[in-house]
This record gives sequence, structure tokens and C-alpha cells, in this order.
Amino acid sequence: MGTLKGPAENRTLVLLMTCNKLRKKSKLLCLFKILGLWYTLIPMSKLDLVYLDHNATTPVAPEILASLSSYAQAWGNPSSIHAGGRDPKQMLRETRRDLAAHLNCSPLELIFTSGGSESNNTVLRALWSKLGSQRNQFICSTVEHPSLMKAMEWLAEQGAQVDFVPVDRKGQLDLETYRSLLSEKTALVSIMTANNETGTLFPIRELAEMAHAVGALFHTDAVQMLGKLPLDLKALNVDYASFSAHKVYSLKGTGALYVKKNAPYESLIRGGGQERHRRGGTENTLGIAAFGEAIRLLSGLSMEASRLRELRDYFEARVLEEIPESSVTAFETERLPGTSSLILAGVDGETMLMSLDLKGFAVSTGAACSSGNPEPSPVLLAIGLSRGEAQNSLRVSFGRENTREQVDAFVEALKSVVIRLRQISKETEGVCRA
Amino acid sequence: MGTLKGPAENRTLVLLMTCNKLRKKSKLLCLFKILGLWYTLIPMSKLDLVYLDHNATTPVAPEILASLSSYAQAWGNPSSIHAGGRDPKQMLRETRRDLAAHLNCSPLELIFTSGGSESNNTVLRALWSKLGSQRNQFICSTVEHPSLMKAMEWLAEQGAQVDFVPVDRKGQLDLETYRSLLSEKTALVSIMTANNETGTLFPIRELAEMAHAVGALFHTDAVQMLGKLPLDLKALNVDYASFSAHKVYSLKGTGALYVKKNAPYESLIRGGGQERHRRGGTENTLGIAAFGEAIRLLSGLSMEASRLRELRDYFEARVLEEIPESSVTAFETERLPGTSSLILAGVDGETMLMSLDLKGFAVSTGAACSSGNPEPSPVLLAIGLSRGEAQNSLRVSFGRENTREQVDAFVEALKSVVIRLRQISKETEGVCRA
Repeated sequence: MGTLKGPAENRTLVLLMTCNKLRKKSKLLCLFKILGLWYTLIPMSKLDLVYLDHNATTPVAPEILASLSSYAQAWGNPSSIHAGGRDPKQMLRETRRDLAAHLNCSPLELIFTSGGSESNNTVLRALWSKLGSQRNQFICSTVEHPSLMKAMEWLAEQGAQVDFVPVDRKGQLDLETYRSLLSEKTALVSIMTANNETGTLFPIRELAEMAHAVGALFHTDAVQMLGKLPLDLKALNVDYASFSAHKVYSLKGTGALYVKKNAPYESLIRGGGQERHRRGGTENTLGIAAFGEAIRLLSGLSMEASRLRELRDYFEARVLEEIPESSVTAFETERLPGTSSLILAGVDGETMLMSLDLKGFAVSTGAACSSGNPEPSPVLLAIGLSRGEAQNSLRVSFGRENTREQVDAFVEALKSVVIRLRQISKETEGVCRA
Repeated sequence: MGTLKGPAENRTLVLLMTCNKLRKKSKLLCLFKILGLWYTLIPMSKLDLVYLDHNATTPVAPEILASLSSYAQAWGNPSSIHAGGRDPKQMLRETRRDLAAHLNCSPLELIFTSGGSESNNTVLRALWSKLGSQRNQFICSTVEHPSLMKAMEWLAEQGAQVDFVPVDRKGQLDLETYRSLLSEKTALVSIMTANNETGTLFPIRELAEMAHAVGALFHTDAVQMLGKLPLDLKALNVDYASFSAHKVYSLKGTGALYVKKNAPYESLIRGGGQERHRRGGTENTLGIAAFGEAIRLLSGLSMEASRLRELRDYFEARVLEEIPESSVTAFETERLPGTSSLILAGVDGETMLMSLDLKGFAVSTGAACSSGNPEPSPVLLAIGLSRGEAQNSLRVSFGRENTREQVDAFVEALKSVVIRLRQISKETEGVCRA
């Protein structure tokens, strides 16, 4: 495909759109000629093949796909005391047990939610309700996930004092500012375990210790960390942590919230006595059962993390070597193994994304949930990138099914896209000046 | 099974527990004799056969079971702008379109949530935030679902004035009290479309009209109504309505909230721009796709409603005729077609439930989410039943897969259980007096 040039890609797009039905039958990449022009027909499943956007979401593990129907057949209400409730209740119990073992906490400290966003919103609102009248300051970093940022906005609307800890260009948290912000007025600090865009890891244990020293509680949004590196909640000594199932090769619509024993808490969604009265609503039994399976599939986590780190390092080395004017954001900082945030000078991120999409590679410009927003990533701006740099950024996040061959193919595609877009940009510049 | 008497049922229980592994292989009901006593071995799947608890949850439709894997394979993040986002985005669009058509509203007036409880909590908190400072009165009936009641409790904690409209023994709302409570201080009225325990239908259109007359907004928890009788939101003229997928033969963990165009609203779960900024969090694409299929399967709704009404009426006629001292709660009121709330004098509901469970019939004593709670149903107490009557109650809710033969078998089982339990009760009374 690298041989197709210029407008051919638009033609590919048109064919993709019109052949939506066809793709289900065809698994082949077709190359054909009409009226002297070459066209490509790429079935969508083929497009999914090189998925490099694992921080946005992950493919559903084949083991989970194979079990979906059996989970769904245990369709009873887990609160029912008749036979229909037994199997679903057991599924909840197993996931809770296995997730707790993975995180090194007690099963009773876990609450199932509809996802990371619900978990984040729940903690912040609970703490405001429980502590707001005595301690009204809430602290987070400037690079938190939108669900955390927006929940902080809600707190500010209620009258809370929300303070932000800056993060520098290397992705590192300004510990001095953090220390100076902490006071006996601090109710809660919320800092993510790993950033979703740059992959930077934050020193959670140290940060939590500093918060505890002033009597504040500590929450971490661990959505990006779970399944990528080992996580030990006891060792981190946090009071709350948020998790999402769809980032670990399971289904969307399921998450969890860790609430340390005896930590202040209040339901966001009130209702029946589910989750020991900590989250109302009939449990998403299918999603929770699948989540359990996803957790059990993490047994080889350390090896997979090493493999992804190698793959990512190899990728970055090739990019830096072979693509002029390229750089990696937070390159020298400790990062998630599979995450790479690139700046490719002079090339618009979104155009790059779409060109790569047509070549069968799925990447992103930032958080998926902000996609379609023409503004550059707030996270990249927050760490000090210029608007131009942020607009020239691309996030590549590797995962379980990615291979070295795919990385090689991707580097080639990226090179050709960058060269072509820089070329077009130069030509357009010429036209504009003319 | 009706021929087995007395302690045989305890033996059945023991065998059930120890044969948990076996049941996956065996599909047969076995009857065998050890040391001169008859034992039954009932595989769990057999127990699921006569499910009469459709108001708690429903079996997953076979059509949905068959499609689960294909839905889950469209695992992309619908917010992604690359190819991976296309299929999931399309699934959301289709469900929104079909649900809107079924409810007679605009697709843009629907927000996907994690279920009925989230929808209920969202509306109440949104209205408190948007209107609380001008209008601080909230009104609901005394028989609302726990998720609505508990959300009202939250409002009261914030300083709202929460008023309750009583419901009489027939299940009818006290319209006079309702009228007298409404004032220019009323922010929102929330009254369910149909009650989950008695099945009583409330005159939503009239109630909404009365609320609107004083400038208040109107919400209805339509969780039990959806899929049981036709629903036309335009005709009802409500401002908000809550729905749940798992009550209509789809998956748990998915629901919807109708918010009339231009009605005041605020996200409960804030985050990315999902659902047009009205509900943060990556969408539960599998659950939403399945919900769409469930809605499409409602095409023969009116016929099915008639069938269920006949089945229920036949059931109630037999019970009233053949079981002495039995009655049906809210018998003369317009009710959901498949719901029956019985009082069987002198027999404890929970004991009855468990005895029927062992005979392979799944029923409940009230809302499933309150199961395990030794207190009698608050709904039945609210409509004026004595504690004794409420404790002698059983909820039977018929659904799509139930047949007249099952009803016949159930009536026989119920008769034998009631006779036996009344007998035991008499004997125990004798022993106690002796």
C-alpha cells in the first residue's frame, strides 16, 4: 500500500464506505484498477488488524468472547434468593475475589461500577459530602483524565477549593508545589497512577504518604495502570482507586472502585442493597464475569510488560532514527511499557491519524473521549508543549496482540505519511504564497 | 414432584448443593431411592425452567444470546475517529434510533446509562442542582422503587422538602393529596408508570398535566412498563423517564434516560464528551447493541401483552378458587398484564418462596434488590397491608417464555406448598401450646 500515492487514499475511503456490507464476507485486501486508476478495497476487519490504540480501549480477549454466551445464560438477578440468583451471585463473588487478589486488597474493599468515570465521580462527590464542611480543599494534577477534571469542576461549583499540581515537560509532577498546597484543609488528593496520553508514572506511594501526613485522603485513577504493570494497593497505601474493565481486554460498561476499609464513603447511585449498600442498581453480571476472566488472564503480566517495553523502545528508536524532526514526549521518564507519545514537527496529528487509518493502522491524537474536538490535547498543553507541538502529536499504544512485524510495517507507514504530509504542506505553502 | 412429602425437600436441597458440578452434564430430573427413601436430583438448569419472576429480571432473549459475540467483536471505542470506532458508533446510533421510535421521542432525547437506578438518581440530582434554589419541593408516591426513594433521601439531606403521595389498598394514588401538595415551590414530581410489586398502573398523563399546571417538571420511572405495554412519551407528556434493559430480555448494566428537549439537565457522571456531554464514560457498546435488539423484538408487544394478561387472569382465578384464604393485591385496578401480587393467609412469604424454589419455580416476595431483608415489603405496607399480610405475600410475574402448562404446574405446586406450610404451622402451634 505504501506505493499508492496522493488521491488514491480518498478513493480507498469511498470504497470503504460503500462496501460496508461486503466487508463481512471478504477478508482479503483487494487491489484493482478501474479506468486506469488503482483502487484498494480494505475490509474493515483488516483495518482492525494493526490496532495501536490500546490506551483508548482494548480488543475483547478471545477467552472472554468464547465465554460470553455462558455468562449471559446466568441471567438471573444476583439479589434473587431463588435458584436463578445463585450462578450470577457466584460470578460476582469470583471476580471480586480474583480482582482483590490481583490488587492485594480485601474483596470487601471493592465496589463494582459502570466504569472508571463513574468510579472517579463517585469518590470526589462522596468526599465532598463527607468532609466538605471540615476540609474543603481538593488537589489533583493538571493532567488527569476528563472524568476526574470534570468531577473537580463540579466540586468547585459546590464551593470547594480545587488546586492543581503542575506537571513538567518530562511528565514529572512538581513535588514542591504539591508539598506547598497540602494543608489541614485538604480533604482529598487525586493523582492518576499513570497518564493516559504520555504514559508517565507518578510516585503514588510517596504522594499518598505526603497527603496522609496532613490528614488528607488519597485517591488514584488507576485505569491506565491496571493490566499494564503490577499494582499493589497495600504497598501504594492509597485510600481509593478507580479501575475500568475495557482497558484490560474486557467489556465496556464495567469498572471497579477500591475503597479502603473504614475510609469515608457515600453512594453516588443509591438504590437497593447491592454492593453492600455502596452502589445501587442490578449488577452488570455479564460485564463483571468477563472482568474476572480478564484479571485471571493477567497471570503473565510482568513478561508481557517487558515484551511491550521492548516493542515500544524498538519503535521509538526507529522513529527517532528514521523520521527527521521527531521526538518522544516524556521520553526520559518512567512510563507505561506500551505507550508512546510522539511529536512529528510540521504534521497535523489528526490528518496523520486519518492517513494512517486508511493504511490500516489505528492510533490516536490523545484521549479517545475527546476525539473530534479540534482543540489540541489539554494534557500535552498542560505539560508545557506549545499548541503547535501538541497539534503535531500522535499517541501510539501497543498491546497484547501487537508484534514486531506490525511495528515495522507501522514505522514504514508512518514514515511515508509524514514525508507525504510534509511535502503537501510545503506545496500548499508555495500555493498560498503564489 | 408433588408426590414427595415432608423432609424429602430437604434431601433435594442437599443433593443440589453437592451436585453443583454434575448439573452441567445432567439435564435430567432423576428420582432414586436410597435406604428406602426417595431422593430427587434436580439439575440447576431444570430449576430455571419455570421462571415466574420477570419483574426482577428477564432471561436474555435467544436472539441476543446469538449475537453477543458479534457485538463484542465491534470492541472499538465509539469515540475513536479511526476505523475501530465506526462499528460501535453505528451500534449506538441504531439502538438510539429504535428505542426512540418505540417510545415516540427524538433519538437526541435519549441518554444511555448503566440502568434504571442511575437514570433515577441522575434526574433527581440534576433537578436539585438546577432548580433547588428556586423551587425546593420534590414529590413522589409512597410506592416508588428503592433507587428513587433513596435518591429522594439524598435530596432531603441536601435540604429539599420531599413529600409523598399515598397509595391506597387498591393501589390507587390519592389524587386529592397530590393536588394539595402541588405548588409553585414544586420542582419535580416523580411517579412510576407501573409498580414493580403490585403491577398497578398510574395515570401518568393526568399526573404530569397537574404538575405542569403549577410549573413543575415530571419524571416517571418507566422501568417496569417498558416492554410490557406500549409506551408513548409524547402522549404522556412527561419531561423525564427512566428505562432498564434487563427487564426487557436484554443485559444488565444498561439503561436509558429520556430528557425532553430543553428540559433542565445536568450530568451525574461527568467526563468525556460522550452522549453529547450528558453522560461521561466510554459507552457500554455491547449492552447498548443488545438493548437495541431487545427493542426490535418488541414488535408483537400488544399481542404478547394480551397473552400474558390471559395467563395471569387464569392463574389468579385458579388461585382464588382453589386456595382458601387467598387474595390478590390491587385486584380491581388496572395492572401490568403479567404481574400478580398474592396474599396467602398464614403462610410466610419467604418460606413459601424457598419451598417453591425447591420444586423448580422461581418467584419472589417483593423487589429482588431488597431480598434477604427480613422486613416485609415497604411497598405493600405503604398501600395499607398489615405486617402479617405483607409477610404472607408472594409476587408472581409472568413473561415471554411462560405457558399455560407451566401455570397449571405452578398452581399445583403452590397449593401443595400452602397446604403443607399451613399444616406445619398448625402442628408447631400445637407443640408450642403443649
